[in-house]
Formats: sequence, structure tokens, C-alpha cells
Amino acid sequence: MEKSISLEDILSVEPFYRRHLINTITGFKGVHLIGTVSHRGTTNLGVFNSVVHLGATPPLLAFIIRPLTVPRHTYHNIKARGYFTINHIHEEILKQAHQTSANYDVKTSEFEAAGLTPQYTDTHPAPYVRESRIKLGLEYVEEHHIRANDTIMLVGKIVEILLPEEALTVNGHLRPERWGSLGVVGLDAYYRAEKVAQMEYARPERQPSE
Amino acid sequence: MEKSISLEDILSVEPFYRRHLINTITGFKGVHLIGTVSHRGTTNLGVFNSVVHLGATPPLLAFIIRPLTVPRHTYHNIKARGYFTINHIHEEILKQAHQTSANYDVKTSEFEAAGLTPQYTDTHPAPYVRESRIKLGLEYVEEHHIRANDTIMLVGKIVEILLPEEALTVNGHLRPERWGSLGVVGLDAYYRAEKVAQMEYARPERQPSE
Repeated sequence: MEKSISLEDILSVEPFYRRHLINTITGFKGVHLIGTVSHRGTTNLGVFNSVVHLGATPPLLAFIIRPLTVPRHTYHNIKARGYFTINHIHEEILKQAHQTSANYDVKTSEFEAAGLTPQYTDTHPAPYVRESRIKLGLEYVEEHHIRANDTIMLVGKIVEILLPEEALTVNGHLRPERWGSLGVVGLDAYYRAEKVAQMEYARPERQPSE
Repeated sequence: MEKSISLEDILSVEPFYRRHLINTITGFKGVHLIGTVSHRGTTNLGVFNSVVHLGATPPLLAFIIRPLTVPRHTYHNIKARGYFTINHIHEEILKQAHQTSANYDVKTSEFEAAGLTPQYTDTHPAPYVRESRIKLGLEYVEEHHIRANDTIMLVGKIVEILLPEEALTVNGHLRPERWGSLGVVGLDAYYRAEKVAQMEYARPERQPSE
């Protein structure tokens, strides 16, 4: 039996229920650790579930920052330093990764608090997570203020990728399940994934096939 | 052994390889069918892997439209009519869903071409996918032009949710795996997911726990 929930229903339920509902209603999402460093040199790490692909040439990604009603270290560090990293989360670092979502003060490094190790390369000034297996280094490109609720979309260009030697197929595909990468539903339910189908490029004149 | 790929490497590889690499490098994503109807009344359906959560109060989502260098039916229909739907994809409709990514002309309904059924409610004018199990009806709110590559972020407000009677937990959580919802890696590899951990809300003064 199909049930309908109206906007009025959504706005009148208890706030925790509404937050769970709207955070989980789109289903599976990617989940990543975003690493930055402040103008004072304090490293910062946070869990995000909003990384999206914008394009391959140039290689651009974006993610969402919540309203700046309280200090958002990730946002301020990116604006101050111009760089950030996006790191996959796998099962062995899940607890440490989730712990970075706790509300630490500005002087505390979530790397230290959670027991993860900053990693730097010659070409990228923001900290990667050494324990992660697939790591992207990005340069800040532009930001967009979403008027409807004061969230911010930050756009970055991938300038470096760190990954295991044998991580990519001959065609350039990453198979994240081979490296234990996780996904998330809402803010706190972590998932592993299993491939059910590899589809061919779809064309109007023929039937879909695997 | 960890390997490093530079921006120069990314920009100098063969375009198909680069597209696969950048589309898959962030790992798992959500995947959804977005339904619209044109000003002439032709229904349209397309697969998208870029739906993100912006906030719960009001309930806002966003997704990415590729550059308007060719007609983007989803974009033009939303701008003309003001409404769209976001529908989960499950295994039994995977082939039909993927087929909607084929490049049909403006007069062809991807619903008909793929063998899916439009569904309307009294409160929402854009077509849902009847065969989907979790369906969101949204009203257009605002758009953002990403200067770096001419993609567009469209923001919508959830005004209706259709789902099975027993789909939500007492706390408002959706468990998408119970309804067969799928995720995607890149554009063509579809995944089912399995929960590995439900974490507690993280606090600075204590250890992470499930």
C-alpha cells in the first residue's frame, strides 16, 4: 500500500524525525573525509556525504557546506588556503572517520582526536588521510550561496590523485568495492556495496544490455 | 604501493579513460530517475547520479545538469513547468531505468521508450515512475551556473513523498536496502548495498561506538 507524505506533514513532525527522514529519503550516498589546514596550521578533518561530480575536463567536483551560523572549519580553511583533500572511507577506519563529525574546537586537530595521520605531497598543501586508500587533492575554484537555506556549494578542481598502483582498470575505471570503500545512508548508517550489473552505453535503437 | 596521478596526467590521457576515471574516482553514489513533463505535454525521464541533500527545514535537494550545449530536456521542462520528481531505482527496473539515458529526440517520452509508467497525484504535476518504490515530488526553487565548466545546479523543495506504508522506522529513517534501492559507480555500474555499521552521534569527549 502506497502512502503519501505532504510538505505540511514534513514540516509539522518533530525536528529529529524530519532530519532523519530528509537525510535518508534519497537512499545511498558517497561518504568522504575532507581534509584541510587552517591559516594557523591546525589540520582539520570532517565527514561529508555530498560530494558530486561536475565534469571530467577539467576534473571538477563539488560538495555542500552547512550555513555559516557557527564556524565551519572546513569552509574557512579552504577559503584561507585554497586547497582541500577528499579521502575514501573503508571499514578499518570507519570509527575514526565517524569520530571526526564530533564538534571539536578550532584548536583541536580532528586527525589527532580521531587517531588518523596527515599526509602531504610535494604538489599539494592540504593534508590527505594516510590510512585512506583513494585520495584526491583539490584546488578551490568557486563557491555558490544557496539562497533558499544559506548552504554553500564549494567547487574544486582535482590536481592530484593518490591510489594503489593497481587500482584502475585498463579503461580507467575505479572499482571502489575492491578497496573497501563505503557509502552512507543519512549521517550515521555506513554501507558496503556489491555490483549487480555493468550496463552498456544506452542507445535509442536497441534494448538495454549488461 | 601508492601511485600519484597529476593534473597533467589526467588532462593528457585519452578522453574516454579520463571520463571513466573522474566519474568513478569518488566511489559510490546515489542513482535516481528524474521525471518531468514538457510545455507540450511530453513526459521525460532521465538517470542522474548527482542528487545531494541541502537541508531538512525546508526539505531541499539539488542535482547537476550538464552544460546546455545541446537541449537538456530535464532542465527545460523544469524551467517551463516548475516541478520534477526523483524516483529510486531498484533491481527489477534497472534495465528500463538505464535505457532512459539513451539520447531520444524531444518528441519521444522516455517513459514509453523504456517501458515505465507515469504516475500523477492531485498535488504534484510532474510524473512519478509508478514502478519505483520511493518517489519524491519537488518544486523548483533556484539554479546556479557553475562558471568553471557551465554545468548547472538545480535546487528543489520536496513537496510530496510517496513510499510503501511501512517504509520508515519509528524515528523517521528510510532503510533503502529493504526496498531494493540501488547505487551506482560512474555512469553504468549499478550496486546493491549492505549495512556494516550504525554509528552513534559523535561527541568530542567519548570514543566512537555503534
